[in-house]
Amino acid sequence: MESLENRKTIRKYKPEKIDESLLAEMIALASRTSTTGNMQLYSVVVSTDEADKKALAPFHFNQSSVTSAPAVLTICADFNRFVKWCENREAVPGYNNFISFVTAAIDALIFAQTFSMVAEERGLGICYLGTTTYNAQEIIDFLKLPKLVIPITTLTLGYPAEQPSLTDRLPVGAILHKGYYHDYTAADIDAFYRMKENLEENKQFIEENGKNTLAQVFTDVRYKKNDNEFFSERFLEVLRKQGFMK
Amino acid sequence: MESLENRKTIRKYKPEKIDESLLAEMIALASRTSTTGNMQLYSVVVSTDEADKKALAPFHFNQSSVTSAPAVLTICADFNRFVKWCENREAVPGYNNFISFVTAAIDALIFAQTFSMVAEERGLGICYLGTTTYNAQEIIDFLKLPKLVIPITTLTLGYPAEQPSLTDRLPVGAILHKGYYHDYTAADIDAFYRMKENLEENKQFIEENGKNTLAQVFTDVRYKKNDNEFFSERFLEVLRKQGFMK
Repeated sequence: MESLENRKTIRKYKPEKIDESLLAEMIALASRTSTTGNMQLYSVVVSTDEADKKALAPFHFNQSSVTSAPAVLTICADFNRFVKWCENREAVPGYNNFISFVTAAIDALIFAQTFSMVAEERGLGICYLGTTTYNAQEIIDFLKLPKLVIPITTLTLGYPAEQPSLTDRLPVGAILHKGYYHDYTAADIDAFYRMKENLEENKQFIEENGKNTLAQVFTDVRYKKNDNEFFSERFLEVLRKQGFMK
Repeated sequence: MESLENRKTIRKYKPEKIDESLLAEMIALASRTSTTGNMQLYSVVVSTDEADKKALAPFHFNQSSVTSAPAVLTICADFNRFVKWCENREAVPGYNNFISFVTAAIDALIFAQTFSMVAEERGLGICYLGTTTYNAQEIIDFLKLPKLVIPITTLTLGYPAEQPSLTDRLPVGAILHKGYYHDYTAADIDAFYRMKENLEENKQFIEENGKNTLAQVFTDVRYKKNDNEFFSERFLEVLRKQGFMK
């Protein structure tokens, strides 16, 4: 667990495949993790065929890790399996609503992170793809996800072919509040973000992007208001189409 | 990590307190986990005072683990800190929308599960409280969470004072799909749920609740349609009030 201290997201992988039985074993082990009412409201779609990975890549803006990874795991919030069980057992399910989506998404993410830590402990590397919720509809169509199933995150997985440098984190005081939320003063913000802003790589990042501050790289280049609004509408539409907003 | 095979949710704790520096150290270690664009879109509010835990308990339907745990950690999706940083750095943030909430919730849950595994490795026990999203508004008020901060899950934490028996899980084939989602036939459902349905404790559970099937215990007693619809409306209202639905 102390290896967490030095963990890195891995985006370049060796061509070496992941043994099918190892993958199933890691998924089974990760499924021991916490789950709401022991309902296990998630599913994993594993893509290992070249053609499948190539088809998924554009939905993840062609991030190279998608095609270079021996396995791509799309992790879904899934109430379909549970509802089918109910319907086959004289039980009338009531899970076509927003809170049920949230509950299933929580289950899916707890599972995803447990799986990631299991995989990392076995010497594998992972990368989370935040693009999953941006292009959920395209992923749903390609992976044939039925109603009440929504992709929440994607993990690319493989044996590391790179050793990236450690990224910075905020001081623990920035994320930890005692008793109640102590809102941040301008001085707090200065103190908590100072180290990040002083990193040579971040100064370069600002210059490369032609910006004045590191924050502007986020607001104007990486996570833009217009994009966020566009993806918000799209994802809400996915919730409706997959049957979670009745 | 193999201890995962035998992990159990712990709801009863020894009175022994958790050292403050240990808690901070575990939170710092867990913050090494994956995070979207290294934004760390989460915060943790730690409640250790008896009065605070007593006040939180009703929002979690007075589950005994809340007051008996030496520490209660409310884990929040948090865009407030990041937006304050942007505003103090000539950057115009655009994160008051649904996809930004989803992104922050993903960050918060990845962090929560990493923290849980760190804590369990140190001999502590945890319990996730799904009630967090049901009564988010009350928690927001009590913990003074500002706009763009929403509680997503809660962990009760302490040294175990019980050794519960291992709970069942579905076979790995039930959650793993190869290439695309293979929807479940009635025969699949029978096969995947057979073990769960045959467990003596689940048969008792059906009888105690006066139901015909285990699924009915979920639909009619534990996670009811009316409750789900009520909590869905409430949580969507929280998203609006906290500023994520602009």
